[in-house]
Amino acid sequence: MSTSPDAPARSLRDLAEALGLELPTADVEITGLNTIDEAGPGDLTFLANDRYAVKLKESRAGAALVYMDFDGDVPMPLLRSTHPRVAFAELLDLFHPRPSYEGGVHPTAIIPESCTVGEGASIGAYAVLGENVHVGAGTRLHPHAVLYDNVRVGEHCEIHSHVSLREGVIVGDRAIIQNGTMIGADGFGFEPDAKGHLRKVPQIGTVIIGDDVELQALAAVDRSAMGATLIGDGTKIDNFAQIAHGCVIGKHTVICGQVGLAGSTTVGNHVMLGGQTGSAGHVVIGDGVQAAAKSGIMVDVPPGAKVGGVPAMPVKDALRSLLYVQQLPDVVRRLKSLERWRKESEPEDEAEAS
Amino acid sequence: MSTSPDAPARSLRDLAEALGLELPTADVEITGLNTIDEAGPGDLTFLANDRYAVKLKESRAGAALVYMDFDGDVPMPLLRSTHPRVAFAELLDLFHPRPSYEGGVHPTAIIPESCTVGEGASIGAYAVLGENVHVGAGTRLHPHAVLYDNVRVGEHCEIHSHVSLREGVIVGDRAIIQNGTMIGADGFGFEPDAKGHLRKVPQIGTVIIGDDVELQALAAVDRSAMGATLIGDGTKIDNFAQIAHGCVIGKHTVICGQVGLAGSTTVGNHVMLGGQTGSAGHVVIGDGVQAAAKSGIMVDVPPGAKVGGVPAMPVKDALRSLLYVQQLPDVVRRLKSLERWRKESEPEDEAEAS
Amino acid sequence: MSTSPDAPARSLRDLAEALGLELPTADVEITGLNTIDEAGPGDLTFLANDRYAVKLKESRAGAALVYMDFDGDVPMPLLRSTHPRVAFAELLDLFHPRPSYEGGVHPTAIIPESCTVGEGASIGAYAVLGENVHVGAGTRLHPHAVLYDNVRVGEHCEIHSHVSLREGVIVGDRAIIQNGTMIGADGFGFEPDAKGHLRKVPQIGTVIIGDDVELQALAAVDRSAMGATLIGDGTKIDNFAQIAHGCVIGKHTVICGQVGLAGSTTVGNHVMLGGQTGSAGHVVIGDGVQAAAKSGIMVDVPPGAKVGGVPAMPVKDALRSLLYVQQLPDVVRRLKSLERWRKESEPEDEAEAS
Repeated sequence: MSTSPDAPARSLRDLAEALGLELPTADVEITGLNTIDEAGPGDLTFLANDRYAVKLKESRAGAALVYMDFDGDVPMPLLRSTHPRVAFAELLDLFHPRPSYEGGVHPTAIIPESCTVGEGASIGAYAVLGENVHVGAGTRLHPHAVLYDNVRVGEHCEIHSHVSLREGVIVGDRAIIQNGTMIGADGFGFEPDAKGHLRKVPQIGTVIIGDDVELQALAAVDRSAMGATLIGDGTKIDNFAQIAHGCVIGKHTVICGQVGLAGSTTVGNHVMLGGQTGSAGHVVIGDGVQAAAKSGIMVDVPPGAKVGGVPAMPVKDALRSLLYVQQLPDVVRRLKSLERWRKESEPEDEAEAS
Repeated sequence: MSTSPDAPARSLRDLAEALGLELPTADVEITGLNTIDEAGPGDLTFLANDRYAVKLKESRAGAALVYMDFDGDVPMPLLRSTHPRVAFAELLDLFHPRPSYEGGVHPTAIIPESCTVGEGASIGAYAVLGENVHVGAGTRLHPHAVLYDNVRVGEHCEIHSHVSLREGVIVGDRAIIQNGTMIGADGFGFEPDAKGHLRKVPQIGTVIIGDDVELQALAAVDRSAMGATLIGDGTKIDNFAQIAHGCVIGKHTVICGQVGLAGSTTVGNHVMLGGQTGSAGHVVIGDGVQAAAKSGIMVDVPPGAKVGGVPAMPVKDALRSLLYVQQLPDVVRRLKSLERWRKESEPEDEAEAS
Repeated sequence: MSTSPDAPARSLRDLAEALGLELPTADVEITGLNTIDEAGPGDLTFLANDRYAVKLKESRAGAALVYMDFDGDVPMPLLRSTHPRVAFAELLDLFHPRPSYEGGVHPTAIIPESCTVGEGASIGAYAVLGENVHVGAGTRLHPHAVLYDNVRVGEHCEIHSHVSLREGVIVGDRAIIQNGTMIGADGFGFEPDAKGHLRKVPQIGTVIIGDDVELQALAAVDRSAMGATLIGDGTKIDNFAQIAHGCVIGKHTVICGQVGLAGSTTVGNHVMLGGQTGSAGHVVIGDGVQAAAKSGIMVDVPPGAKVGGVPAMPVKDALRSLLYVQQLPDVVRRLKSLERWRKESEPEDEAEAS
């Protein structure tokens, strides 16, 4: 991708200093950032995965950012970092600063008089606000965002197109909500009556989202039946994740794509739920839990546990089960061998009946 | 959540009478409904899950709704019901009646002259109707709903923002479609030609949705290749559920989040499909079937069956398989012990070759 | 479904000639196409699945399209094809030609002066284009499509309502994007800092979509961190599929509903990924691979492989494992029998300790 035209060339040394890294052994002008394959002489690249180390040798990049003890024989000067991914994110911010938008309200946006809009906020074309909505200072609503009555969005948030925030939803500061995500639609609450007809349980709660939360595209956080569905500060939620009514998600937690949490699931802080994981309702997933992709969490998971499988169990038990299942043909063969031996050992008439 | 300001205080006795429940042993003024944790002296709360029975003892709630034979020692007067969840839904309706909207068409809504709009219908800002659309009496289209040509929506429906109803889709009465759900997008029909290029099969069918159906946020029901994809009366479909082209779903059925039904799946009445379940195409799932979360339904399921696992099998078989797999380390240990015994029993030269 | 009123009646013989098929033994006037159940005397129907062969005998259809060696005893004249599904798709195009839209820009569409719109393009109500957007000739944007800055859409595409195309996304010619699909939202890139707080990695790449691609409703293709997420020509992607940042998808590949591909997954040409399949990041799935529904692809898959299960393995291994697991109760029974025999064979005092 092209470097931001506003980004001046900077020397590798200057970049090392800006990021607090050890100075490189050689200096070079850096005008942009690029992938190992596409980087040219002015670009700094990044070794993201050991799998690609061999490519770095042949890259045309002017310099590379690597981890501390990388010892490959590569032709370009290196920056080294104990957290190279974080350092590269900092470089991306330096070279590609987030564009600043002129605050202001597009003339087609619908904003009732009961709403308040903070300084420097930007409200895009055809955005629709209900009654008593508050949009914080510096927050940007892209075109076609829809905020129902009594929504409150904090400062310096970014709400993308085709997002709906339903009645009374509260969003903290610096949250990012990508396109098409729906916050606060009704929870899935129905009770069968005596005939088996399903009666809707009114969902009178709401959703409260903390500071620095990011929800990717086409995710859903449902409003609770009563009280609020909660998403803690700093938590990141990927596409197509389903957070059902009454869930309470902790801080700095990562919920990957297509995860489905049933109603009233409690998730701790610093948790990582792999893609396509599901939880049963009312389970408690402790702080620091890591669940492998496609886990099926049926019961509470203690803090710090690493789980996987359906039903989810400690990862090492899940792997052990897999290995044992793969041994089954051999087990059956050995069992047959023993049975043949028994048959040969026993006189015909003594053979067991069952 | 705050009690509706319009709801007057009512005595616990009056509420019992209104719901047809046994009168409570003590009376108290009730001004709202709330969760066990957050309820105050004027609130009626609800024991939703035995897991929380211990909390009820310490709740500040003025009264609680419980099941008939609850025998916990709690400080507040109780209402008892054989269907406490249904009773609580009725209470929620009493205290939080659905807001009535002024009918009327927002001046920015686009409604061609060929359309008809029933009495008391409400059409929100920037809603767009195609040609020959009918919107029934009392139905509410929220802002940013888009109805393609020839759509017909019945009476007293609620269609939320960012919903698209595609060409010719028919929706019954009292249906609720939450935000971002897409009804009638093309089915996934392609045929490889001799070169392996995929030719689109035109999807000329449509979708017909019955009365009292609710689709939660970001669900999809695809139009059939020919004929119609059908959703029966009273059926409820959760977020991210995928109902492919040509599916026929019965009445009063529950389809949980992230379920994926492949083309031409037939689902009976009063079925319950757990979250993240999938079906192969052209299977028939009988009336009253219950499928556990994450089931993979590959073949027809007879009425009333309870299934789980991948491939889906009777739940008790799936559980038995799991238990047996967990025994495998023990099985292998016992097998080795028998083999050692055999080795000790046999003279060296008679050891079996294979 | 009703036949297009513009489609004149055609004789079965004429249709055979138009499609290059063998002439039928009898002729009949055909006025439309319909399903086996609903076809009447003027309709041509299609045997889509052997499962329905018995129904064809009782169908009122005037004629039927079948595969070459179909030998059922049915009452109507037959057309035979080596690719009956492709032939039926051609018939659907003949009888139901895609409606032609008047080109033109709806007065409510927002199109900055920096944009270019090709001849015959159609831009619907409330569509919003950012700066420097290009819409190719003959392309149709439905109402409520949102194209961010610098998007380029090729010729004769169809972009449905509630689709967002994010900054710099490129779409080829003749692509179809169904409702609510989001292309180019930020990839899910975060790095934990020393405190475990998650720092956003700016996603400065984009998405490039080839010619003749179709994305169904509510799918998501995320922009890459750097470079571009790529979708090859002729590839078809179903509802709720998640294509993460940096994925490279080949040509003429089929990705079914609710598939989730983690970051930097590479998928070859002519691949078929069954519904609800997931991949780990950075894996390579070779040309012609077929993955069964609900597969969990953890490592590279060689070209042409047929895989299934979690973790994905060759389908025949996955099936074999299943069969062996089903034998486990029998294995344990036989093991117990051997143990009883051993016990009977050994003197009491020699019984093994462990």
